[in-house]
Amino acid sequence: MTRSHNCGQLTTASIGETVTLNGWVQTRRDLGGVLFIDLRDRTGIVQIVFNPDYSGEALQIADKVRSEYVLAVTGKVVKRDDETVNRNLPTGEIEVQITDIEVLNAAKTPPFFIEDGVEVDESLRMKYRYLDLRRPEMHKTLLLRSKAAKIFRDFLDNEGFIDVETPILTKSSPEGARDYLVPSRVHEGEFFALPQSPQIYKQLLMVGGIERYYQMARCFRDEDLRADRQPEFTQFDIETSFMPQDELLSMMEKLMQRLLKETIGVEVALPFQRLTYAEAIGKYGSDKPDLRFGLELVEMNDIVASSGVKVFASVIEKGGEVKCLNAKGCGTWTRKEIDDLGPYAARYGAKGLAWIQVKDGEFKGPIVKFFSEEEIAAVKERTGAEDGDLLLFSADTKKVVADVLGALRLKIGRQLGLIDDSVFKFAWVTEFPLLGYDEDQKRYVAEHHPFTRPMDEDLHLFDTDPGAIRAQAYDIVLNGYEVGGGSQRIYKRDVQEKMFDALGFTQELAYEKFGYLMDAFEYGTPPHGGIAFGFDRLIMLLAGRTNLRETIAFPKTASATDLLMDAPSPVDAGQLEQLHIKLAPKPEKEKK
Amino acid sequence: MTRSHNCGQLTTASIGETVTLNGWVQTRRDLGGVLFIDLRDRTGIVQIVFNPDYSGEALQIADKVRSEYVLAVTGKVVKRDDETVNRNLPTGEIEVQITDIEVLNAAKTPPFFIEDGVEVDESLRMKYRYLDLRRPEMHKTLLLRSKAAKIFRDFLDNEGFIDVETPILTKSSPEGARDYLVPSRVHEGEFFALPQSPQIYKQLLMVGGIERYYQMARCFRDEDLRADRQPEFTQFDIETSFMPQDELLSMMEKLMQRLLKETIGVEVALPFQRLTYAEAIGKYGSDKPDLRFGLELVEMNDIVASSGVKVFASVIEKGGEVKCLNAKGCGTWTRKEIDDLGPYAARYGAKGLAWIQVKDGEFKGPIVKFFSEEEIAAVKERTGAEDGDLLLFSADTKKVVADVLGALRLKIGRQLGLIDDSVFKFAWVTEFPLLGYDEDQKRYVAEHHPFTRPMDEDLHLFDTDPGAIRAQAYDIVLNGYEVGGGSQRIYKRDVQEKMFDALGFTQELAYEKFGYLMDAFEYGTPPHGGIAFGFDRLIMLLAGRTNLRETIAFPKTASATDLLMDAPSPVDAGQLEQLHIKLAPKPEKEKK
Repeated sequence: MTRSHNCGQLTTASIGETVTLNGWVQTRRDLGGVLFIDLRDRTGIVQIVFNPDYSGEALQIADKVRSEYVLAVTGKVVKRDDETVNRNLPTGEIEVQITDIEVLNAAKTPPFFIEDGVEVDESLRMKYRYLDLRRPEMHKTLLLRSKAAKIFRDFLDNEGFIDVETPILTKSSPEGARDYLVPSRVHEGEFFALPQSPQIYKQLLMVGGIERYYQMARCFRDEDLRADRQPEFTQFDIETSFMPQDELLSMMEKLMQRLLKETIGVEVALPFQRLTYAEAIGKYGSDKPDLRFGLELVEMNDIVASSGVKVFASVIEKGGEVKCLNAKGCGTWTRKEIDDLGPYAARYGAKGLAWIQVKDGEFKGPIVKFFSEEEIAAVKERTGAEDGDLLLFSADTKKVVADVLGALRLKIGRQLGLIDDSVFKFAWVTEFPLLGYDEDQKRYVAEHHPFTRPMDEDLHLFDTDPGAIRAQAYDIVLNGYEVGGGSQRIYKRDVQEKMFDALGFTQELAYEKFGYLMDAFEYGTPPHGGIAFGFDRLIMLLAGRTNLRETIAFPKTASATDLLMDAPSPVDAGQLEQLHIKLAPKPEKEKK
Repeated sequence: MTRSHNCGQLTTASIGETVTLNGWVQTRRDLGGVLFIDLRDRTGIVQIVFNPDYSGEALQIADKVRSEYVLAVTGKVVKRDDETVNRNLPTGEIEVQITDIEVLNAAKTPPFFIEDGVEVDESLRMKYRYLDLRRPEMHKTLLLRSKAAKIFRDFLDNEGFIDVETPILTKSSPEGARDYLVPSRVHEGEFFALPQSPQIYKQLLMVGGIERYYQMARCFRDEDLRADRQPEFTQFDIETSFMPQDELLSMMEKLMQRLLKETIGVEVALPFQRLTYAEAIGKYGSDKPDLRFGLELVEMNDIVASSGVKVFASVIEKGGEVKCLNAKGCGTWTRKEIDDLGPYAARYGAKGLAWIQVKDGEFKGPIVKFFSEEEIAAVKERTGAEDGDLLLFSADTKKVVADVLGALRLKIGRQLGLIDDSVFKFAWVTEFPLLGYDEDQKRYVAEHHPFTRPMDEDLHLFDTDPGAIRAQAYDIVLNGYEVGGGSQRIYKRDVQEKMFDALGFTQELAYEKFGYLMDAFEYGTPPHGGIAFGFDRLIMLLAGRTNLRETIAFPKTASATDLLMDAPSPVDAGQLEQLHIKLAPKPEKEKK
């Protein structure tokens, strides 16, 4: 009984036809000897009917089926009576009168209902992922993901990019996150590493003259996980030669525009807003600002430096800064509501949170008395403060001020309903710092990675102020999430050597670890750069979800476990022996 | 100096235009103060000219460039004089008179010439793969590979398949080849395994109602390598529910037809020939027969069982068989030429090789005297022996006879020039044995994998003769290579249990290893089946290469090494400590 039609695609056009359907029992209702089954396949649901008048033996068989049984049925498509038409179902105008049935497989009662919006413990869903995947919502997300991948590929193919696979068994890299290792059987005592990204391989493809490369690449990071991290994740990886940064960014904007239009029917306008890192941090306290609303941060140093607010003056003296967030319309908050912001701000490092309410044209609040009239006028003008506003001040190091007011901006924006979830607002953040100083390691570390090209005009700073060097690096931000990032890459050996030197690598170490790349730079490496999109996160945003696990067919839990397969798991001693490794004994104290 | 045009795409249509090109110096010739450079980018080559008349300073700069330098140049496209037109170059009718040049990067002399057909030690090519990739041949193969992937995806998308990624960090499986293992940091003493294929995940997707799945999947096998094996390889993985085997095979034929047409312009006729495993072994001595030529094997048992050739009679008595290969036209071979076949046949297990030459209507050769006239007449008729033919006989177990005559058939077919390399001949081989008996392990092992569905009519043989069960399994064969294989899968728990039982698994072990799958079978698993194409091998055949490494951007050597990155390699002790493993001490004797 081979399928002639799909369930969800039957319409009134098929009335009178005899069809064979294959699918699962969604629901089964017995109305006085007449049996109604909603039959589900990947395309949707259709009602099939078993009636003693025409079903014969099939009715007896159907009487025994239960939810999630797998059926093959044959019958005639008929129009439903007007009063029984189901307007909620695309196939709701017809039903199929069954004359033949075969039970292809039976089903026990599933541990949870196969429908959207059911409250089920996530670990149960993971253990029975094969049932969870039957829910329309999961199905839709996987379809969206597949479609998005196709849009990426079609777009890039059309622009002359070629899809090249790079190795998964590769070499451990001394920079970046923790690697997953794979012991070699053939080479005793040696290990492969799983790639954190195809970074070096894609650069070598540029050296190899490929010019335009892409890959939907699996990447691996052995980090402690958060809701939006997975030990293995997918990035849409892109690299180009001879393409100026602006051209690449414009091309990627067109890709995003097409992606949103063809997956979720949303039009986004081009070009995307571009902010430098300094502007993003300055205005939004974040390098991935949510631009669906305003509430920009305002600099206050010049106004408050000599005010009577001691903490402001002293922070500024120490090189810190004072900034203000005008929480429009929050001036009517109670003292308690305002005070409740304190602990929230403290999570981001705030030692206190100064505030001013604007009421009847007047500034109110504990710090107001320390301001002169001129200062109040200046604050009012700078912040655009009006009646009913609440001014929040943070005074600390630049980083803490950005973190605190950036977080408050998001919290208050959400609270005030300023964020329209139907809006998709992209932006580019550019000119990231090349290096950051790591207090633990007492050295500079690469903010992006050690292959990021410095801005030409900042090259001289390697010798004087490496921390001030800006990189030819860019992130693409969507609604407050970083959905991709990239850079132009170093392509000259002398610059790469300066970079390794700034990172505190000896020449020997640099050559030991990245010698092949430095060698490659000497054989005609073209200027090149690229970008990688976090595909899981992008799909999460398009699907309107908040958890990466909802976008992946078989995700790992927060403790990096596959609950369905029970992986990782112990292995035979013989396997380890072949790999020339053994389990390390537990530390003494754990043994007791 | 941003590229305005690609090198290979300049035609006479651009004459008079000022263009900017970016690319590599292929060759440089100095003709009395006028400099000619062939500039290469991914699209091809164009000649650029530096002449004191119009190049000014650019000539001085160009004078210093060498092979593989990276240039940006601007100049005017002009028509070449008739006598200097290069008919071998698509751009050969024009050249570009350069007025501006920038050297984007210099290049040392490469360790080998960047051109096709150069004889270079493969390990040198691997170490400098980024230069090797610049060769047009490698470039073309990677382009072909990218295009082939797109054809697969477009075809399958169009048939309603969805692209789903399955995990790389998964669980070690007790059947099949050796796994690559990945120690878990979070779960002490436990390991992930890299997948040998997405087999179980794709079956679970079918349980999950996906119905049509595909993935270009990376797979891993820690085996000792041969020329056509890589530790990591790509398979185009496909699975369907509710689709009868015949429908799936027909669909895949259309995919192959389109693939060959759109990549290499070859038309293949549908449907493909279908042979059972028994027919393939019987006629061609191989389950992946090269069908570009005939030379079929012929059964001889009934004719020679009672002949005077003792070895024939005794082999048949012991249950073995005698077969003949009629090497058409080889009857004129010298005794030495015939004798030389002996050692070759011995490699495939032959203990001897009997032969008969046909000359002047007569059988000649050492064994002829043991045949009766009736037997000679019967042999003549059965083999179609004519003047000038050479009959080769193998008498042994069925397996040895197939191996020996199958190998001789290929050798002689090639030697006689019967194989047309421009022909692409597909076939399906079906009805493979489900189980094979492993003499070492003294048990049955799965010929395909333990999830392969037996043929319904053979199910009863589980209790009486498991070795005789045929599987609903099929391989797709192209010119003597297996380029894909698959099966319909078991989808009922009781059949799966019978299978594990036949493999000698206790119920406990079966459940411990595959419990999740057997559980899944109880929640409404649809009938399903699929196929996986060996993508690397398919590309190898399309590209006309004989080595998988030529089809992969960054392959491993035969000892599973990445010579470019130097992987695998030793890692820090700290990394191992975090993973709760240590290196096993070398065995005593190696220490000395």
